[in-house]
Amino acid sequence: MSDLYAVVMAGGSGTRFWPASRRAKPKQFLAVAGESSMIAETWARLDGLVPVERRLVVATAAQAELVRQALPQLPLANLVLEPLGRNTGPCIALASAEIARRAPRSVQVILPADHVIRPAEAFRATLAAAAEEADASGALVTLGIRPTQPATGFGYIEAGDTVATRGGQAVRNVLRFVEKPKREKAVEFVASGRFFWNSGLFVWRTDVIEGAIAKHMPAVRAALERAARGEALEPLYRALQPIAIDVAVMERATDRRMLVIDYVWSDVGAWDALAGVNPADAQGNVATGGAQLVAEDASGCIVHGANGEIVALIGVKDLVVVHARGATLVVPKDRAQDVKAIVERLEREHGEFL
Amino acid sequence: MSDLYAVVMAGGSGTRFWPASRRAKPKQFLAVAGESSMIAETWARLDGLVPVERRLVVATAAQAELVRQALPQLPLANLVLEPLGRNTGPCIALASAEIARRAPRSVQVILPADHVIRPAEAFRATLAAAAEEADASGALVTLGIRPTQPATGFGYIEAGDTVATRGGQAVRNVLRFVEKPKREKAVEFVASGRFFWNSGLFVWRTDVIEGAIAKHMPAVRAALERAARGEALEPLYRALQPIAIDVAVMERATDRRMLVIDYVWSDVGAWDALAGVNPADAQGNVATGGAQLVAEDASGCIVHGANGEIVALIGVKDLVVVHARGATLVVPKDRAQDVKAIVERLEREHGEFL
Repeated sequence: MSDLYAVVMAGGSGTRFWPASRRAKPKQFLAVAGESSMIAETWARLDGLVPVERRLVVATAAQAELVRQALPQLPLANLVLEPLGRNTGPCIALASAEIARRAPRSVQVILPADHVIRPAEAFRATLAAAAEEADASGALVTLGIRPTQPATGFGYIEAGDTVATRGGQAVRNVLRFVEKPKREKAVEFVASGRFFWNSGLFVWRTDVIEGAIAKHMPAVRAALERAARGEALEPLYRALQPIAIDVAVMERATDRRMLVIDYVWSDVGAWDALAGVNPADAQGNVATGGAQLVAEDASGCIVHGANGEIVALIGVKDLVVVHARGATLVVPKDRAQDVKAIVERLEREHGEFL
Repeated sequence: MSDLYAVVMAGGSGTRFWPASRRAKPKQFLAVAGESSMIAETWARLDGLVPVERRLVVATAAQAELVRQALPQLPLANLVLEPLGRNTGPCIALASAEIARRAPRSVQVILPADHVIRPAEAFRATLAAAAEEADASGALVTLGIRPTQPATGFGYIEAGDTVATRGGQAVRNVLRFVEKPKREKAVEFVASGRFFWNSGLFVWRTDVIEGAIAKHMPAVRAALERAARGEALEPLYRALQPIAIDVAVMERATDRRMLVIDYVWSDVGAWDALAGVNPADAQGNVATGGAQLVAEDASGCIVHGANGEIVALIGVKDLVVVHARGATLVVPKDRAQDVKAIVERLEREHGEFL
């Protein structure tokens, strides 16, 4: 089998995890779901599958130092810097071009840095099976998450027939990608058993994705070629339209296949998601970031604070309580999405906070 | 009229204002109801009535430095140190003995350091009238608070007939002091119009209180006399029974009179009391300590934090939210009294926190 490379995408802003996250330090650099930062856990999840020298991390120049601190094992030559963020399309094209220079007949796994996936062994088995399929078939392979609820915050993948079995796992055809649905549609999708959440995890052969980039993102390909011939990347990159790889490539390609993740997966979209990916006490309270929870008649709460910091809750229920970087946040779990709005308001009214 | 002295009692523990207060820094040293600490506001309330050189502050030795920081104007000779706290009886006796040495035919006003009283002009007028009454009649004068609700957390004073008018204010006989009543009794008291909250504010002539101390607290008097003759105060003081001046003297004396405070008064017993003594926004939210409240669909909340620190509330109601000294507290206003219990638990489980 071809050499396996990994691309960890470290970009993304962190407004929903304010005040722990800031524009300059989004959630992938925080320990919101485990002992170490999400990016370090993503990195560790590859141990035993992809050797360190074949792991690339793509980050914006502004985040380079954060990445180096979070991943001291990362070879400097494997830190691929974007001048600025242009969504996953250009990000993946940039990383793939680097891999193509090193190993044109390799297989790539593409991983966002801010997902929780457990257990790591199961995930590595799925990645290995997907890599085998991508290598052998030349298809663009994605991983679909078996939905646990009719979520309206994710795109969905409609899966077709099983076309192969790799490492004991079914490989299915992808019929179509569907944008975030309305509630009613989501209920229908989940009931059908044929729809899976679009995880943003991809596995493909380098020559195959390079061909797809040339076909579906010609402007990006052209910009990267000019940069390779010595032009400054920054103005070329700045001129690109931001576009997701899903929209640019996956929705347009024809030979697409999917393997299923049916163990713990979360993109930890907002504070309330921490409840699903951290251990809880008998009353369903979760403490993260090293905070020490002292609860009296409190249940279903999520607290976050610096290591050893006390968070005391008395007589409250289903609240998110966060103290970080000189700011305190209290919001009911079911309104955790509204944190984004308050951050935007803070930025508008007091630019200095983010 | 005789010279007027003031005694500010700076003792008291601060468990109910955790985590802002600590055993070593109780609420009188915090800015919980105004720009400066409660003791500094108590001090400033005397401006124009009692000259600085006739103001004494009684504190425990452990709090001496806190007092000096909070009251830089306090003449060092006027800081009266108790070796340890023995409630208000011994505290007042110690201060009174010092005043008796300096000015035996003076009048004293006794003030706890941790009350909110507004407006200051009205309070000074009441104190001046009470001092005139105490000076002329030789009665032990107390100030009763006109109750705004059937509180069960205060003792009550039953007032009798009006016996004099001083500075336009009625002076009434005191019939009796009543311990904290049950709810039903408190409702009855308030409805009667004859009952007032026992404020712990007293005004009396030095010779009169000295006589009362000799009569009703002979052990305290004896200890202070031995100390005056050169014995170490600490073991003498340690051997005293803690007792409140109300119980030791006021309940037993016969010639007692009362003036009424019918403007803003609060002993700020717990976090929820801050709502009554601080300005609120249009949704009834109160921010104290210099914290900057950012509220989205939040009402009736009380927040406290360090100067400039953000407290963001989304979709919550009637909560107390405090961050101070590395700890965060969230509790509904109507359970603010329970903070004491959690502090005791913290002390039991992690002695280091207080």
